[in-house]
Amino acid sequence: MSALRFSSRLNPMLSNRILSQTNLLFTLSSFSSSFKKTSKHLYCTSNSTLHNNGGTSLSLSSNSPLSGLEDELVGYIFGKKKATEVAHLVWRHVLRKGDMVIDATCGNGCDTLAMLKMVADESGFGRVYGMDIQTEAIENTSSLLDQAVTPKEKELVKLFPICHSRMNEVVPENTAVRLVAFNLGYLPGGDKSIITISRTTLLALEAAKKMLISGGLISLVVYVGHPGGREELETVEVFASGLSVDGWICCKFQMLNRPLAPVLVFIFKR
Amino acid sequence: MSALRFSSRLNPMLSNRILSQTNLLFTLSSFSSSFKKTSKHLYCTSNSTLHNNGGTSLSLSSNSPLSGLEDELVGYIFGKKKATEVAHLVWRHVLRKGDMVIDATCGNGCDTLAMLKMVADESGFGRVYGMDIQTEAIENTSSLLDQAVTPKEKELVKLFPICHSRMNEVVPENTAVRLVAFNLGYLPGGDKSIITISRTTLLALEAAKKMLISGGLISLVVYVGHPGGREELETVEVFASGLSVDGWICCKFQMLNRPLAPVLVFIFKR
Repeated sequence: MSALRFSSRLNPMLSNRILSQTNLLFTLSSFSSSFKKTSKHLYCTSNSTLHNNGGTSLSLSSNSPLSGLEDELVGYIFGKKKATEVAHLVWRHVLRKGDMVIDATCGNGCDTLAMLKMVADESGFGRVYGMDIQTEAIENTSSLLDQAVTPKEKELVKLFPICHSRMNEVVPENTAVRLVAFNLGYLPGGDKSIITISRTTLLALEAAKKMLISGGLISLVVYVGHPGGREELETVEVFASGLSVDGWICCKFQMLNRPLAPVLVFIFKR
Repeated sequence: MSALRFSSRLNPMLSNRILSQTNLLFTLSSFSSSFKKTSKHLYCTSNSTLHNNGGTSLSLSSNSPLSGLEDELVGYIFGKKKATEVAHLVWRHVLRKGDMVIDATCGNGCDTLAMLKMVADESGFGRVYGMDIQTEAIENTSSLLDQAVTPKEKELVKLFPICHSRMNEVVPENTAVRLVAFNLGYLPGGDKSIITISRTTLLALEAAKKMLISGGLISLVVYVGHPGGREELETVEVFASGLSVDGWICCKFQMLNRPLAPVLVFIFKR
C-alpha cells in the first residue's frame, strides 16, 4: 500500500520504457504518506524492487563492501542461521581494525575470539575488554585464546572476572568503544543457577550507552528459555524503547513460533 | 556464551595454526548446550565469524546466488532501509520466474508491480492475483501497471475488488501459490476510515496458509500507527505463533524505539 502517483506529464510509452530499466532510481514512499518528491512528481518503489530477477539470479557488484552478509541474514529469516551468527555479521559491518570493543559476557570466549579477529591490527592496535562474573568463564575464554590466536594477538585482550555492570571500572576512561556485546543468560556447561539478571544488565546497558561512540553498536543475544529470561528481555526492550529516535536505532528480531529461541536486539548509536 | 571445549588431544601450536585459517569450518554450538560434535571434538563458532576482516573489506564469492540482498537487510538494521524494501528483497529470494503469487492488499499497486517483475516469464508464465476491498485501490493498481509494464505483462495480473479474506474464491483451486503478501493498514491517500481488520485478516491468513506450497512465504508489513493497528499485529502474531515449528518458520522484525514504525512478519513454509 505504498502511496503512488505518476506525473500526468509522462508519456505512457516513455514511462513504460523508463520503468523497465532495472537501474532506474525510484523513490519509495512510506505508508505514512510521507511522500518523497522528485521534480514535483511522486514515484513508487525503490530501484531494488524492480530488478527483473528471479530469486536465484540476483546481480550485484562483487565489489560491494557489504558482500558476505547476505547468507547469514537471509539464512536467519529462513531458519538456517543462528542468532549468534547474525550478531557476528552485524559486528563485522560496524567494526574496523584497531577498534576498541567490549565483550560484556565472555562465557566460553567464542564472542571474545570473534571480536579479536575483527579488531586486531598488525601494528598492535585494537583492544577487546572481556568480562564475566564467573571465574570459570574467564578461564575458558583465556584457554580458547591460547589455542586460537598468537600470544601477540592475545595481548590485545584484557579479561576481568567481574560483573558486566562494572565495565566502566575496568575500561580506561575516554576509550572510544565501538561495540558492546551481550549474551544474556547462563554459562553453557556451567552453573545454571548463575544467570545474568535484569538489575545488573540494566546498569551495564546504561554504562555501555555512555561509553559508546557515534556509529557504535550495543548488540544483545537474549536467551529466554530459563527462569528470569523473559523478564530480562523485557528490561532490554524497555531500555531500548526509551532511547531517542534522533540518537539511536533500536531493532529486535525474534522467532514467533519458537518461544524459547534467543532474541536479537541491536542498539545502534547514530 | 556459546558452549565450547577444545579437545585436549589437539596440539596447541597445531590448533593455533588451524584456527588462524579463515576458511576453517567450525561449528557453532548454541547456548542451549546442544553441542555439535565433529570427530568427537566440540568446536566453537562458525567459519563466518572468524573471517579476519574489518567491516569494509569482507570477502565473498561473487557467484553467491544471494548476492544483492545485503544492502537492504543490513540497511534495515541500521535504519537506512524501509520495511517494504526488506519485504521485497525477501520475496526475490523466494520467487522464481513463472511463479503464482497473491497480493492480498493491492493498495496503490507498488507491491503488485514488484511481484509481477519478479514472476513474469517471457513465455507468458507467472501470475499475480491482486485484490483490495477498495475499488479505488484496484483502479490505482491498474493505472500503475498501464504505465509501468507492457500490455502482455499486464495480462499476467488478475485484479479483484474484494476483501482479502475471499482470496480462495478468486484464485483457481490447486494453484501452487509461492507468495502471499499483505500490507496491513489503510490505503495511502484514500479513505482512512477503511482499514484492514483483525477478523478478515485472520481469515485471509488461514486461506493463505492452505494455498501456500512448500518453500512458499506469507509476507506481512503491518502498520500500527492507526487505531486498530496494534490489535491487528497481535492477531498476526498469535496466528504465526500457533504454527508448528516443524512446518513453519515465523519471524518478526521491529523497531523498538519507533512504536509507530511498520513491523515485518515473515511466515515461511518449510
